[in-house]
Amino acid sequence: MEQSNRNVKLRLLEAFAESDQEYVSGQKISEVLGCSRTAVWKHIETLRKEGYEVEAVRRMGYRLIKKPEALSAVEIQSSLRTSFIGQAVHYEKSVPSTQKIAHQLAGEGASEGTIVIADEQTEGRGRLARVWHSPINTGIWMSCILKPKIPLSQTPQLTLLTAVAIVQAIEETTGIQPSIKWPNDILINGKKAVGILTELQAEADSVHSVIIGMGINVNQQDTDFPEALKRIATSLKLEAGIDISRTALIQAILYNLEQLYKTYLAAGFRPVKLLWESYAVSLGREIIARTLQGTIYGKALGINDEGVLLLETADGAVEKIYSADIELS
Amino acid sequence: MEQSNRNVKLRLLEAFAESDQEYVSGQKISEVLGCSRTAVWKHIETLRKEGYEVEAVRRMGYRLIKKPEALSAVEIQSSLRTSFIGQAVHYEKSVPSTQKIAHQLAGEGASEGTIVIADEQTEGRGRLARVWHSPINTGIWMSCILKPKIPLSQTPQLTLLTAVAIVQAIEETTGIQPSIKWPNDILINGKKAVGILTELQAEADSVHSVIIGMGINVNQQDTDFPEALKRIATSLKLEAGIDISRTALIQAILYNLEQLYKTYLAAGFRPVKLLWESYAVSLGREIIARTLQGTIYGKALGINDEGVLLLETADGAVEKIYSADIELS
Repeated sequence: MEQSNRNVKLRLLEAFAESDQEYVSGQKISEVLGCSRTAVWKHIETLRKEGYEVEAVRRMGYRLIKKPEALSAVEIQSSLRTSFIGQAVHYEKSVPSTQKIAHQLAGEGASEGTIVIADEQTEGRGRLARVWHSPINTGIWMSCILKPKIPLSQTPQLTLLTAVAIVQAIEETTGIQPSIKWPNDILINGKKAVGILTELQAEADSVHSVIIGMGINVNQQDTDFPEALKRIATSLKLEAGIDISRTALIQAILYNLEQLYKTYLAAGFRPVKLLWESYAVSLGREIIARTLQGTIYGKALGINDEGVLLLETADGAVEKIYSADIELS
Repeated sequence: MEQSNRNVKLRLLEAFAESDQEYVSGQKISEVLGCSRTAVWKHIETLRKEGYEVEAVRRMGYRLIKKPEALSAVEIQSSLRTSFIGQAVHYEKSVPSTQKIAHQLAGEGASEGTIVIADEQTEGRGRLARVWHSPINTGIWMSCILKPKIPLSQTPQLTLLTAVAIVQAIEETTGIQPSIKWPNDILINGKKAVGILTELQAEADSVHSVIIGMGINVNQQDTDFPEALKRIATSLKLEAGIDISRTALIQAILYNLEQLYKTYLAAGFRPVKLLWESYAVSLGREIIARTLQGTIYGKALGINDEGVLLLETADGAVEKIYSADIELS
């Protein structure tokens, strides 16, 4: 029953999407849903209760005026252009962390491409257990479960691949041109708008699941950022000057992610690497890499075929940087 | 209070261990525990209730005749020769899988060297989610949490390191000389006596915890093995012909593991690699490697510095084998 209501909602939203903000007649809707005109009215009422504003005009039909602020799985899946990423969506209003839930689902055998998304994270976190500020209804707090058959040493490649997918989706959806700071920051005008956290469920010699978490600052106002972050963080809205549809951006990310991931599985890391390098700041420049083992100064030569950063130090040696915070010096 | 009872038990067991199966006078025990002769009697009664057989003879004192069949954390920790591995022991009579509990504890911040051990696993598993038969009070079903600061690509080395530690401990404790089949099987007379499962909690570029699971067939009789396993599995008791003390073997494993791990952190993989190669069967021989991607035939050349198996195929190419079942051809 729930599944059937969900399908009705999905078809209804798709009918509105196709109408491109024009009126859709009650007759048309009753045909699309295969139900009576009275039933159409009931379904519209259900939508309204969920926060959709629907205008009804005699002889014209129905028109979708405004969608609710909260995300919804059905909304994301309506007109989604993917074959497996996002075909299962686990949505919750508020969660401690989407990564945590994705880990559980992966452990219970969730299928590849399963997405966990929430309107709010109360314990959102980034790399190295750092806090990720995730206020309600402003950003995209999302985790994606992938199950590539790759050696462990190649998993950092998926962080870079995801960064490319997100940059492409932001460009397509907003026109903004972000850049990437190795390994996982997406910057706009030098400020951080996106973080990516790639975690694993793995044996020492084989990957079970890769859980890719994304935190994307979309519609935050300046006042939504804590004082400590204002200098270093930004949102797409602050940069573009307009509200951005989170649903449209999610759909674009899932699409680009799937395209790149398919390319990666078929053709390897090289095409992804070329794209990544085209978006990267800091290549060819002097940087400071702060690793857990100490700080290294040098010139960022590029990334190798495993996605590891290569740093040329003053004495000409080339250091492989697996994990670090980097800063332009 | 529980902690204090635990300390009393630990000191009491150590006093018996030092006496080497001779009588320990009530006077001596009351000095060791810092309590009255009457209290000594009460502590001995507590031991008896836990399944220890303690003989009491007038004017001679107390003698430990038999320990309970079940393992106990205190027993394992008494006379343990390590500085951090096994200093925290999480024991349960029966669990679904010690790996599962170790993962939980690691996620909650358990300290490095924490051990999870059970007398029975109801859902014990090996590599690639295969079942590991773990009947009660017969084997060592144990998981160890390590937190090395190493790149992901090096984690297979820890499987090999653990195999060496277990082989050394079996040699010391039983005189049996096992061999190692890459990557994680320990064989005695060609039959499998030990399996090792190394799992990770990791980001794409840094390891949080390595959870090393060990399944060791110790005191199984022939009849304890399911029909399907009899041809391919064995126990230390079946090979040595005598009962083996699981506690003594655990202590030896923890000691050898810590020694090797310290060497590894200080000097890298090379010394471990040399030891591993000295125990390995199949090096230099024609083998069949069944990987998830297909079956490869070739000569096992050895392992490289990452712990990856190198296989020379008929056309002279050298394949890196990250994950496979291997068979001598």
